[in-house]
Amino acid sequence: MADDKKLVSAITSMEDDFAQWYTDIVKKAELVDYSSVKGCTILRPYGYAIWENIQRIFDGMIKETGHENVAMPMFIPESLLQKEKDHVEGFAPEVAWVTHGGSEKLEERLCVRPTSETLFCDHFAHIVQSWRDLPKLYNQWCSVVRWEKTTRPFLRTREFWWQEGHTIHATKEEAEAETLQQLDAYETLCRDYLCMPVIKGRKTDKEKFAGALDTYTIEAMMHDGKALQSGTSHFFGDGFSRAFGVQFADKNNKLSFPWQTSWGISTRLIGGIIMTHGDNSGLVLPPAVAPIQVVIVPVAMHKPGVLDKAREIAAQLKAAGIRVKLDDSDQSPGWKYAEYEMKGVPVRLEIGPRDIEKNSCVLVRRDNREKTFVDLDQLNTAIPEMLEAFAQAIYKKAKDNLDSNIVTATNLDEMKAAIADKPKFVKAMWCGEESCELEIKEKTGMPSRCMPFEQEHISDVCACCGKPAKKMVVFGIAY
Amino acid sequence: MADDKKLVSAITSMEDDFAQWYTDIVKKAELVDYSSVKGCTILRPYGYAIWENIQRIFDGMIKETGHENVAMPMFIPESLLQKEKDHVEGFAPEVAWVTHGGSEKLEERLCVRPTSETLFCDHFAHIVQSWRDLPKLYNQWCSVVRWEKTTRPFLRTREFWWQEGHTIHATKEEAEAETLQQLDAYETLCRDYLCMPVIKGRKTDKEKFAGALDTYTIEAMMHDGKALQSGTSHFFGDGFSRAFGVQFADKNNKLSFPWQTSWGISTRLIGGIIMTHGDNSGLVLPPAVAPIQVVIVPVAMHKPGVLDKAREIAAQLKAAGIRVKLDDSDQSPGWKYAEYEMKGVPVRLEIGPRDIEKNSCVLVRRDNREKTFVDLDQLNTAIPEMLEAFAQAIYKKAKDNLDSNIVTATNLDEMKAAIADKPKFVKAMWCGEESCELEIKEKTGMPSRCMPFEQEHISDVCACCGKPAKKMVVFGIAY
Repeated sequence: MADDKKLVSAITSMEDDFAQWYTDIVKKAELVDYSSVKGCTILRPYGYAIWENIQRIFDGMIKETGHENVAMPMFIPESLLQKEKDHVEGFAPEVAWVTHGGSEKLEERLCVRPTSETLFCDHFAHIVQSWRDLPKLYNQWCSVVRWEKTTRPFLRTREFWWQEGHTIHATKEEAEAETLQQLDAYETLCRDYLCMPVIKGRKTDKEKFAGALDTYTIEAMMHDGKALQSGTSHFFGDGFSRAFGVQFADKNNKLSFPWQTSWGISTRLIGGIIMTHGDNSGLVLPPAVAPIQVVIVPVAMHKPGVLDKAREIAAQLKAAGIRVKLDDSDQSPGWKYAEYEMKGVPVRLEIGPRDIEKNSCVLVRRDNREKTFVDLDQLNTAIPEMLEAFAQAIYKKAKDNLDSNIVTATNLDEMKAAIADKPKFVKAMWCGEESCELEIKEKTGMPSRCMPFEQEHISDVCACCGKPAKKMVVFGIAY
Repeated sequence: MADDKKLVSAITSMEDDFAQWYTDIVKKAELVDYSSVKGCTILRPYGYAIWENIQRIFDGMIKETGHENVAMPMFIPESLLQKEKDHVEGFAPEVAWVTHGGSEKLEERLCVRPTSETLFCDHFAHIVQSWRDLPKLYNQWCSVVRWEKTTRPFLRTREFWWQEGHTIHATKEEAEAETLQQLDAYETLCRDYLCMPVIKGRKTDKEKFAGALDTYTIEAMMHDGKALQSGTSHFFGDGFSRAFGVQFADKNNKLSFPWQTSWGISTRLIGGIIMTHGDNSGLVLPPAVAPIQVVIVPVAMHKPGVLDKAREIAAQLKAAGIRVKLDDSDQSPGWKYAEYEMKGVPVRLEIGPRDIEKNSCVLVRRDNREKTFVDLDQLNTAIPEMLEAFAQAIYKKAKDNLDSNIVTATNLDEMKAAIADKPKFVKAMWCGEESCELEIKEKTGMPSRCMPFEQEHISDVCACCGKPAKKMVVFGIAY
């Protein structure tokens, strides 16, 4: 076991330095590599495979509800970006500008898309003329660029990969329903597949997306008590339609402005998975998105029959739809145990000559290291059951973390006291004035995360100014 | 039938103006829209869905052979692009340059990737140290940018979508085998899924990829006799490894330079599908990549039972794994017939009250408009059989077009005469000198397409200079 001790000790413990622990995992689990472009990372096969699984699951969900994928250009002409006033103010300061094509200077600068509302609106103006053309329920999987100053793998990088849904509807009600339906889809993805509990709510005006009337969000709590905004869904009203001149003739041939939404999740969800489930041995991956669900480690591999049996089991599990890897490399079993713990593989299957004699093997769960001896004939039921129990257990652990680190406060002092030891989510009442929101952020360090759909009555008055309260808000330090 | 006549007449006939016919289809089948960025197109849902099907098929093929997907940044620092001399010469004149991030001028210009060899090599230099790290069999699905002067949807656009495989190996032999294996994969994709016959061969030095030792290609023939380079696979030797300082320690701890390949196919394949199979009624789509394989058009839709039966059939076909669409919109059947012919849907299923009485329906094939009356109980076998026969028929038609438009010539006059009426592929012998290749291009208008793997002996001497011939070359006008 000397080998794996060495490997494990190579990660900073999360209690000592959570940020360094995160960086160590990202690097040692081979999720990303740094590139020659400052602030841009490379998604390595293991990291990208997690993203592919998220894509497959979510793409299936949105197609079930009638959405279609498209591909927009990566460039936006400067004049197009400027058409919607709030939007350009929000994004122009952080875009990358293309000024030359080959050796020629462009007549008009192009920005690399930071988000594609303007491109979709421009396209909608071409293709939407009549009520027959509505709704359009579009989505694209792509990367976008925001020229951030400070970056961290997955959480904030200058280029990141995401999906952006863009829809356009004949009525306000339809667009609002779409906005909320997609927020629910994000909650489902996080809860049922990523084992991440989230708080659903609406952003304050200060925190909403540039150009949106309403921004809805799901907020997850990381292991250190900080928040991760994990998905947002925006209702635009008809503001973009008006700015871009998108109009449609209704059944009575009357021209109206249609209603729009957009919504997105990104590779930052992988950062969320790391910081929700990981431990001091490395990653812990939700089975639904784990590139490898079961790793088979043969013991005394060179004894006759061991590798044959391991291969037979691998083939059998693969046929049963389980993502399985047999590691038959010449590394020691101890090295392999540590390696796949680092990589967060939910279940390890150990098999050696004595197991084979007994027609049995050992399953070891990544989360609690529980060992179970399982008859080989039972594997096809035992493993899916174990993966399911594993998913429930890591969800519960994350939910317990959320529940035990969310507190209420009725004034600024209580808010400050609540997070004196470590970051938490703090629920407090708010009058609705931006000045109070700003003062809370300044004095406690916590911006508002959202106004949860599940409102509670904590007090009658704003925690900041003491005037009548309008909403309960969750505050928290965020990634 | 007045409606569909109107629609059909809206396409230019391919005999009158092939280029306009192509543009009409691209637009009227709703494959692309033009964007506000000159030379960049939008892939609309129907066009993108074809690409998604190509992706799914090819991604499955490369994963079966051990390849893994990654995501590289979209930017390349200028200094990185310049590391391999031939490569930078080939690509620098046509890249888009990012010079500013937000309001700040960048210290070093970044180009938007035209291809990612330099990024992969930079990454390989980080992660390849030992023989244990080899091979790396990587691929990415992304878009790339080349600042072309003249553009056409799918065939040549400033931004296009593709896959680029990049692999690195311990030995020359392994890398060469990989290069050819992937060329074979492209042939399989084209032949078995896109119903496009291709000629496989090696590019001349003049036509090979910037930085490659050998470039292999598959060349397809379009309906008008022109060539479409449909996929290329490159063997780099150890040139990139040396330029980027990638080295590995072998089992004896001796440092060596590894061997590399890259290979790509792009959305131009969709242009190939259009120009291989399309006709004067619109697209004709190979079943394997058709977003809709069967469209159900209910006749006398408002008669009792018709829509119910149509829905029942749709559900039944969907459950059988067939991509089916029921069009229950209030457009006339005639309008729908024309619409889905334009969109190239392989099979149309018509069902009305009289069919239902007989427990039957009508299937109409898109390619030859053959009508078949099929018992409803037989649909689950009749439709897959019809799709298979359809695929074979359109492949055969394309193969006949290729076979009847490929000719041999022994000198420049014969080469010119061969294509006097219309473009063709011309097989001719070549001495191996670039000067002859250039002269042939200048005098006949045909660049070399490839030196086919299946060589024939047409004559002893070069068709241009009369000196001893080394290779049979296929020449042709290309998109």
